[in-house]
Amino acid sequence: MTIEVDYRFPPNIDAFRQAKVIAIGQTAGTWDERFSHREDSLRSHLAEVINVKTDEQGYNIATVRFPEINVENDISSLLTMIFGKYSMAGVGKIVAVRLDNNYGQLPKFGITGIRQQLNVVDRPLIMAIFKPALGLSATDHATILEQVATAGLDIIKDDEIMGDLDTAPTLERLRACRPILDQIKQETGRTVLYAINVTGNAQTLLEKARILVQEGANALLLNVLTYGFSVLEALAADPEVNVPIFAHPALAGALCASGDTGFSYSVVLGTLMAHAGADAVLYPAHYGSLPFDPIEEQKIRDILRSRNVFPVPSAGIHPGIVPQALNDYGQDVILNAGTGIMDHPDGPSAGVQAFFQALDYYQADQSFNWETLPDSALRRALEKFNQS
Amino acid sequence: MTIEVDYRFPPNIDAFRQAKVIAIGQTAGTWDERFSHREDSLRSHLAEVINVKTDEQGYNIATVRFPEINVENDISSLLTMIFGKYSMAGVGKIVAVRLDNNYGQLPKFGITGIRQQLNVVDRPLIMAIFKPALGLSATDHATILEQVATAGLDIIKDDEIMGDLDTAPTLERLRACRPILDQIKQETGRTVLYAINVTGNAQTLLEKARILVQEGANALLLNVLTYGFSVLEALAADPEVNVPIFAHPALAGALCASGDTGFSYSVVLGTLMAHAGADAVLYPAHYGSLPFDPIEEQKIRDILRSRNVFPVPSAGIHPGIVPQALNDYGQDVILNAGTGIMDHPDGPSAGVQAFFQALDYYQADQSFNWETLPDSALRRALEKFNQS
Repeated sequence: MTIEVDYRFPPNIDAFRQAKVIAIGQTAGTWDERFSHREDSLRSHLAEVINVKTDEQGYNIATVRFPEINVENDISSLLTMIFGKYSMAGVGKIVAVRLDNNYGQLPKFGITGIRQQLNVVDRPLIMAIFKPALGLSATDHATILEQVATAGLDIIKDDEIMGDLDTAPTLERLRACRPILDQIKQETGRTVLYAINVTGNAQTLLEKARILVQEGANALLLNVLTYGFSVLEALAADPEVNVPIFAHPALAGALCASGDTGFSYSVVLGTLMAHAGADAVLYPAHYGSLPFDPIEEQKIRDILRSRNVFPVPSAGIHPGIVPQALNDYGQDVILNAGTGIMDHPDGPSAGVQAFFQALDYYQADQSFNWETLPDSALRRALEKFNQS
Repeated sequence: MTIEVDYRFPPNIDAFRQAKVIAIGQTAGTWDERFSHREDSLRSHLAEVINVKTDEQGYNIATVRFPEINVENDISSLLTMIFGKYSMAGVGKIVAVRLDNNYGQLPKFGITGIRQQLNVVDRPLIMAIFKPALGLSATDHATILEQVATAGLDIIKDDEIMGDLDTAPTLERLRACRPILDQIKQETGRTVLYAINVTGNAQTLLEKARILVQEGANALLLNVLTYGFSVLEALAADPEVNVPIFAHPALAGALCASGDTGFSYSVVLGTLMAHAGADAVLYPAHYGSLPFDPIEEQKIRDILRSRNVFPVPSAGIHPGIVPQALNDYGQDVILNAGTGIMDHPDGPSAGVQAFFQALDYYQADQSFNWETLPDSALRRALEKFNQS
């Protein structure tokens, strides 16, 4: 049972030396003869440098192996150990973390559980985001939900910046939206998930999550990086929170956008999220509106799936991207669109229809092009989004 | 009541344009005529670009003013708003955040409260760290504590990587150390604080903090950035946690070490910590063992003090640094030494004595030099640390 971490250093840095600093300084440290009676115990906590190699760009990658007895089977203590003080040395980036399968938590639901809840096994899931992000009332949310849910949407989520605000308090949003979810269920048998944003200080957030679930919330959204991995882990471990948790990547760029410091996106949005108990993880798609490396995106996808966590490529997703997304992802993906659904020229219902029409074409193995399409929600979407 | 954030962009980036993207994209977003009936509400959530200027290096700094109604008077929702999705654009760094005085939380104790507890008003406080960091038993901790507490130490803390581990579980460390603290109190009237590291998922961490305080813990240490600001806020808001909270900067480099992305250290370790309820905040001193910008260090010091939070310059602090530290800081500072106390050639007691001897020289307005000092704990410390 070990933990392996790859640290990448620029060519001018002595990677082996830095890795030794990490292996000792981030674990037991040094000791003198006063502690000779604890020699065995002290040694058992030391990490070791197990490899140093140079990549194609001349960067040096050092692998350090840490003992699992130093940490608490969670992400927070892991982060403190592998990068806590050393991160302030400012000369290395963590590009991979390898954990045992049983490190941390598995999702309560994940891909199979969410599919089971929705009773959808043979296609990707379509997810929308309430827009505008702030300023609508709880009733406005219910109106929008009715439009998209009736049109066949699988999942909707709050915008990540929609907290527990006076204009539309969280519990009011739930109480306004829950009857729509019930109505869809009754009329069509379909389950639609609403991932409601859970916020507050850690104590109030955990209490609020339980209250929301008691009041009928069937999914939660958490900004894991602004609230803390320890909060995700607490939600994932809580038997009362028996609904899927959607992890939002807000703030990930502050940890991952630098070339030489911080973490690779695939570590934070892949490995750490997947071992902290998230059921589905959102992250930028490389064909979306945020700059993103396709290689990192693939890594995130594969890491998440290896633990049954649903990948949710996001940001700039619209119906025209469906063929490429499905080529890249296959079925086990949640396509998450904000304006790509809400800003459809004919309204959110048409936005949802356009996605399903695109899915139909793809599944029938037919390519589509807006100029040759018959008039349809899809054509109208492509006219707008393929050109913007 | 507003929130102002300074974003710094490299010279080749159109700062005004990016700031507009932030002001709209990180708040209400855009809307069309379907939402004209909510125009006033939507507008009230929008941020605005209030200034763009160019600094001496040619970097452009854009200031965006956000409405406080968008957030929940806490750090997590603030971070989601000011940098959540935008951080993944990867082109800007947050170099300052200005919050109203009543935003967030004030420390329960802070400088005045901690001084009152210790009954020390006229000098800096001296703090040590248990070393080696991992591998000692709870009894070993008690032995070390006795040595340093008897020598006059004010505060001791766990190493930040010492969690709730089998070799020395947290509650066992407390139970072994608490009698020493009581004994010192009884024999000398002095209070010595032991900032014990509180860990776990958010739920267990908050429960553990209450149990530790019930069992006699008189201070807590929290790795705020690996556990989450929301956890610090919950501890600070909890009336049962009526002990000072020492905030450790572990992982700060992952957020702050990059020149063009993430945050300035003074934002994370100054502004955010000070508004999240920390009583004392540790950070690297620029004359210590980690590279650190003296300007950032000054900003952290001043921001913390402006809210009565104790600045705790750390990393590489030893008795030889006392004169410079006190010139920079004056009295209201906690000098935090790990190996600078524990690795004194004559042991930890001598390490503490050396600090107090250095303080005495400084307060008597006398400079000192190891070559001319009489044989003393201070001279022995200088011989070792000034040369290493």
